[in-house]
Amino acid sequence: MGVNYFSDDEREFVIKNMYPVRPLVNYLWNETAFAELNHFGFGYSKACINKRFRNIVNNVRLVYVKDLESGEFFDINRNLRDLPYDVFFSRVGLGYQTIESSYRGIYGTFTVLIPETENVELHKITVKNVSDKPRRLSVYPYVRPAVNLNGHLAYGKGDYDEKIGGLYYTFHAFNENNPYQESFYKCSEKASAYATDDRKFIGVYGRLDMPVALRKGMPESCGTAFSDCYCAAMQIDLGLQAGEEKVIYSAVGIGRNREECQALAKKYTEEITFTCEYKKQRTSNETYIEKFKTTTPDKYLNSVTNIWLKRQVTLGKTWGRIYGKGFRDVLQDITGFVSFDGARAKDRILYTLQHQFISGNGLRMFDPTLDYPYQDMPVWIPMALLAYLKETNDFSVLKERIGYYDDERKESVFLHLKRGMDYLYAHQGEHGLGLWGGGDWNDSMNNCGMLGKGESVWLSIATVKATDDYAEILTHYRGETGIETIVEDALNKKKQLIDNIVTYGFEKDHFIYGINDWGEKIGSYECEEGKTYLNPQTWAVIAGILDNTQSNKLMEHVENNLKCAYGYVQNVPPYTRPDEHIGRMSYFGVGLYENGSVYNHGVMFKIVADCMLKRGDRAYETLKMIRYDNPENPDSGTEPYAVSNMYFGPGAFTNKGHAPYSWTTGSAAWMYRAITEFMLGIRADFDGLIIDPALPSAWNGVTAERVFRGVKYFVSFFRGENKGVYVDGKKIEGNKVPLFEKGSTHTVKTVF
Amino acid sequence: MGVNYFSDDEREFVIKNMYPVRPLVNYLWNETAFAELNHFGFGYSKACINKRFRNIVNNVRLVYVKDLESGEFFDINRNLRDLPYDVFFSRVGLGYQTIESSYRGIYGTFTVLIPETENVELHKITVKNVSDKPRRLSVYPYVRPAVNLNGHLAYGKGDYDEKIGGLYYTFHAFNENNPYQESFYKCSEKASAYATDDRKFIGVYGRLDMPVALRKGMPESCGTAFSDCYCAAMQIDLGLQAGEEKVIYSAVGIGRNREECQALAKKYTEEITFTCEYKKQRTSNETYIEKFKTTTPDKYLNSVTNIWLKRQVTLGKTWGRIYGKGFRDVLQDITGFVSFDGARAKDRILYTLQHQFISGNGLRMFDPTLDYPYQDMPVWIPMALLAYLKETNDFSVLKERIGYYDDERKESVFLHLKRGMDYLYAHQGEHGLGLWGGGDWNDSMNNCGMLGKGESVWLSIATVKATDDYAEILTHYRGETGIETIVEDALNKKKQLIDNIVTYGFEKDHFIYGINDWGEKIGSYECEEGKTYLNPQTWAVIAGILDNTQSNKLMEHVENNLKCAYGYVQNVPPYTRPDEHIGRMSYFGVGLYENGSVYNHGVMFKIVADCMLKRGDRAYETLKMIRYDNPENPDSGTEPYAVSNMYFGPGAFTNKGHAPYSWTTGSAAWMYRAITEFMLGIRADFDGLIIDPALPSAWNGVTAERVFRGVKYFVSFFRGENKGVYVDGKKIEGNKVPLFEKGSTHTVKTVF
Repeated sequence: MGVNYFSDDEREFVIKNMYPVRPLVNYLWNETAFAELNHFGFGYSKACINKRFRNIVNNVRLVYVKDLESGEFFDINRNLRDLPYDVFFSRVGLGYQTIESSYRGIYGTFTVLIPETENVELHKITVKNVSDKPRRLSVYPYVRPAVNLNGHLAYGKGDYDEKIGGLYYTFHAFNENNPYQESFYKCSEKASAYATDDRKFIGVYGRLDMPVALRKGMPESCGTAFSDCYCAAMQIDLGLQAGEEKVIYSAVGIGRNREECQALAKKYTEEITFTCEYKKQRTSNETYIEKFKTTTPDKYLNSVTNIWLKRQVTLGKTWGRIYGKGFRDVLQDITGFVSFDGARAKDRILYTLQHQFISGNGLRMFDPTLDYPYQDMPVWIPMALLAYLKETNDFSVLKERIGYYDDERKESVFLHLKRGMDYLYAHQGEHGLGLWGGGDWNDSMNNCGMLGKGESVWLSIATVKATDDYAEILTHYRGETGIETIVEDALNKKKQLIDNIVTYGFEKDHFIYGINDWGEKIGSYECEEGKTYLNPQTWAVIAGILDNTQSNKLMEHVENNLKCAYGYVQNVPPYTRPDEHIGRMSYFGVGLYENGSVYNHGVMFKIVADCMLKRGDRAYETLKMIRYDNPENPDSGTEPYAVSNMYFGPGAFTNKGHAPYSWTTGSAAWMYRAITEFMLGIRADFDGLIIDPALPSAWNGVTAERVFRGVKYFVSFFRGENKGVYVDGKKIEGNKVPLFEKGSTHTVKTVF
Repeated sequence: MGVNYFSDDEREFVIKNMYPVRPLVNYLWNETAFAELNHFGFGYSKACINKRFRNIVNNVRLVYVKDLESGEFFDINRNLRDLPYDVFFSRVGLGYQTIESSYRGIYGTFTVLIPETENVELHKITVKNVSDKPRRLSVYPYVRPAVNLNGHLAYGKGDYDEKIGGLYYTFHAFNENNPYQESFYKCSEKASAYATDDRKFIGVYGRLDMPVALRKGMPESCGTAFSDCYCAAMQIDLGLQAGEEKVIYSAVGIGRNREECQALAKKYTEEITFTCEYKKQRTSNETYIEKFKTTTPDKYLNSVTNIWLKRQVTLGKTWGRIYGKGFRDVLQDITGFVSFDGARAKDRILYTLQHQFISGNGLRMFDPTLDYPYQDMPVWIPMALLAYLKETNDFSVLKERIGYYDDERKESVFLHLKRGMDYLYAHQGEHGLGLWGGGDWNDSMNNCGMLGKGESVWLSIATVKATDDYAEILTHYRGETGIETIVEDALNKKKQLIDNIVTYGFEKDHFIYGINDWGEKIGSYECEEGKTYLNPQTWAVIAGILDNTQSNKLMEHVENNLKCAYGYVQNVPPYTRPDEHIGRMSYFGVGLYENGSVYNHGVMFKIVADCMLKRGDRAYETLKMIRYDNPENPDSGTEPYAVSNMYFGPGAFTNKGHAPYSWTTGSAAWMYRAITEFMLGIRADFDGLIIDPALPSAWNGVTAERVFRGVKYFVSFFRGENKGVYVDGKKIEGNKVPLFEKGSTHTVKTVF
């Protein structure tokens, strides 16, 4: 058991401790399928078909190896039998996962990959004889293909298929609108036997660690039907000389018919295909890595900024939070993603906006669908569009005509944007604040406004921020007439809204969260629990509701009230009693999710707010607190290479500080932006690159490379005299570096 | 590994071969909860709350025993580690399951029981030192209580609770309409440690066979929250002298609040409660066993008739097919159940009829609900009522006023019955046959009549049978005016219906199944597949559509076309291609369910038809074919003590003859009636007990005891001269034994 480490050159995180607090997860994906794999290569892979998930592999992938002389066997990727392996580690790659192990002279590797397109998983298996004598082995690749699409087993069957040259499973169900009713598994090597049913391979009373097929020999090769435990297992017999290695490629996937299965199986078990797809994964990530690289005194921060956050944001921009693609989630992730892949960002913005209602609000979640009257969807539209426009200056996007979720009309993105903003201002309550409805960012306060009366202060603050973004977009947009009037109108409404926020939302030293349907303040000193919340404060800073002094005081309120040893909690004190006037948040256990956890998405808002107020040290300290290596929270279980959604709060019943999962959180995009755009302060603008750092006081000599509109800027930050921004050695006015010819490179030295 | 056997005196089936083809299942239940246990005591237990299932235990129950001297451990009920146990067997009881094992001088037993009421499972554990020296042990009872009621883990937690004196789990979810959000686990013995989370007890990377708590010692006792793997495990330390035994009682259950959990936990961990509940289970079965006992030359037939079929029918009358309570299923099971528990049968009839629509048809399934336009529900109402009335003569049931599923009106059972019959005759198609709709008994022919045109011949035949039952009820009913007209009208309609059945439904040598929406015949020589079906023929006999000669020819058609080595298949040839003009049956794999399996429910109809035609040998041969001990189908996997739903047909892709599950099938009630009422021919009538045997030719000297209206009849059957029925030694006219004074006993000798 060794120490895990980042291997930046390989773009890998290497897991040497194979038994961490919890399994460490990696995601592999393309635009239609994904796999959620742990460091043993176990986990579900799925495709989203007609807005429903359709599993590809049900969790288990194993490669057993049996020595035919001794009869001994082990598995390459899980060590199910707790054997004394000589080598056992896992490599978390960008788009693949590899497990390597060695036992009694056999060195094996197992790699899983999702190719660029298609609902297929590729496996590469290598088996090498590292002993000094010839070995006779049987290798048994084993997976659990998802065959049963519903509970009626009588539709399913599977068997070896000559045309496919592998295993072929069908589930031709009556009245099943999923066209993907077939699946396959094929190996590049000839198998001497196969199994399609766990009852045969594992045994009716068997266990994965001791399959009957390994203990007693493979059962007769045959198909199966009416099974609730399909498997795909092959026996591949190998004779390996000392030092000899054998490579096996295999593929498991789903298809609409036998021809499709056959074609996929053939293509994806060829060496050339695997090699090519492996390269594609790496290349696509390389492009992203090239777009922004920084070297700070903090090595870990460099790794995550240059490599891993981008990867996480890329997952989010396509798959949202995995259990579904959230309107607000995808749009936020795009704000992070746009700086390294503008074209794909545009595509995702357009797809997301097709889930906007004609009212202007958006569907909470699509693929699969979740429709509940959350009120904040329009808030995120200007933010994503503004980020896209500043990065690309491609205003043509505003003219793209796309449909609505509940209306056949196609309208320009500009009108989508406008309808969103109009919705926000049209839906205000008696205090002139945004109607709370089913909730906002905090979608677990889902019962505060369902009667149509409650108003959310946070939502109102976010609307102010959205209005500024909106106005900024429109001010630069020449594509419509009457824009000036629209801007003026929006800014007037915003002014009034700010007045209302301050009048009704500010209390002593902080903003409350809102006023619910029953006229009760939430997040107020009047409350017994949940007296103050994090997000209204940080967003008041982000939206510039108050002046600088007051904003700093707000952040002191945050420091004094919401800080714990490993971050900042969402609210204090957390709710201990279910309250129907609030919603499910108050039903959650203390310290879980929105109810008093360190919800990292909120912490990232806080870091951005710190940076905006030039509280660089605070920002950096906060960043370090929520990291996996915070000594105050050593057993959080989080993946060092992915931001977690939350840490259980200090009030949690058990497992305080635990991070149950990572990857699927808005934190990644905000963390990426916080570091690159607010701490380093390198921000795209319509006509140049803004340099506006808020670095921690101990940092000096930080560098960064940023590709912007095809130009590479080498940015450096030094503390010293003659403060200013020097472009190619010459000081410029202000802090906006101008645009240059595509393909050119320039130095930007910042002295501060 | 020994040989399984029936222990009739103990009312048990003893499983000595602990690794059969598939696990053997037992059901334990009361009116609100059930457990589906295999012979290791594994399996889910559930309660039905607000028409939804709410699990109590998630599958796993284990009792680990650790020797504190050697550190060795084993489990009593599963032998997860494949150790060389000295003893290992399982006792299938009526209302309980006991597993016994012995390893290295420790003899353990584990019994699971569902008490007469409440959503609770009781466990009795005994641990005996059968070695010759004192032993220090730790015993670890372990179960997986069902805590999470939905996927949002943040609502759940569990810990030791002082008041309960055991483990207490809550899941107080927002907007969750299940009032049973709590669960508990308590032991009668003091625990030195406990665990609530598998991550602690089994280990994050552990396995059930090697829990970290057993290998390395119990983790610190603590609660857990936000878990997807709650467990309830206790460590109970015992010092046992040679020969000493310790008994531990434990209970796991669900409740609405802590007080309820506390009360249940206290009550059900007391020795007296367990003893009493154990006795109750046995007593209730004893009553049923006393109601009918036969001694034939076939010992197995005696066991299943006297003991096991009643048990299976009792399950069906409450829980239907487990996945739901089917209208037709419960009513049919009641026809078997009524002869040994009339009062409970009445209760179930009334409950079922509350799921009738005002139209007269019934809801296919309730608890949980399945609503699809099956057309046969009314067919089963007269059958169940007639059986009840003949058994009890309690015509007051027809005056009971109950509601409809879709209407607030309360009407008499008589009107429910009438509405049902009216529905059948009002819904006829162009050939004057019953409209097929979404299907009938064969509910996998679910697309034949959805356009409103298709007509089912089988449904029409069943309507004829229902009309006879209806007329028989009404003829004896004096509770309404105008009955004679209703009867006359019904019989006239029946006459016309029979004409139509024969005219449009008979083809050469058999009845077709029907004519679908497209005018295509199903079950006809015109078809490429599914040329003939079993049920239209057997039911034509049961309903007396044809004369005796023709009926015998029909049965010969069945013998010649539908017989296989282990029964009679539903249809030949089975469908190999999906056909939307039929429905899901044609999508099923060949030989599965309605598509060409030996569907035992249908086989029982066939046996009844044989008996009605006095083809006693055929009936008995058929009975032997579908038994677990048919040498032509030795590895079916079926429980010898429960009738299976089906055997995969001879055309099945794999596992021909396999019985995937038993217990939940209409076969049990029909088999019970086939043996008792048609083969032995002891049938209740309004005014006496009919003796009408159709015994196999090799049988002589068969006896049976039947309690009818409080009178015990000792019936015997002898072949010989002077044929006739002799009651208390005196020959009677005909074959109907008269009623006697309650409590009296009489002999009925039948010479034939």
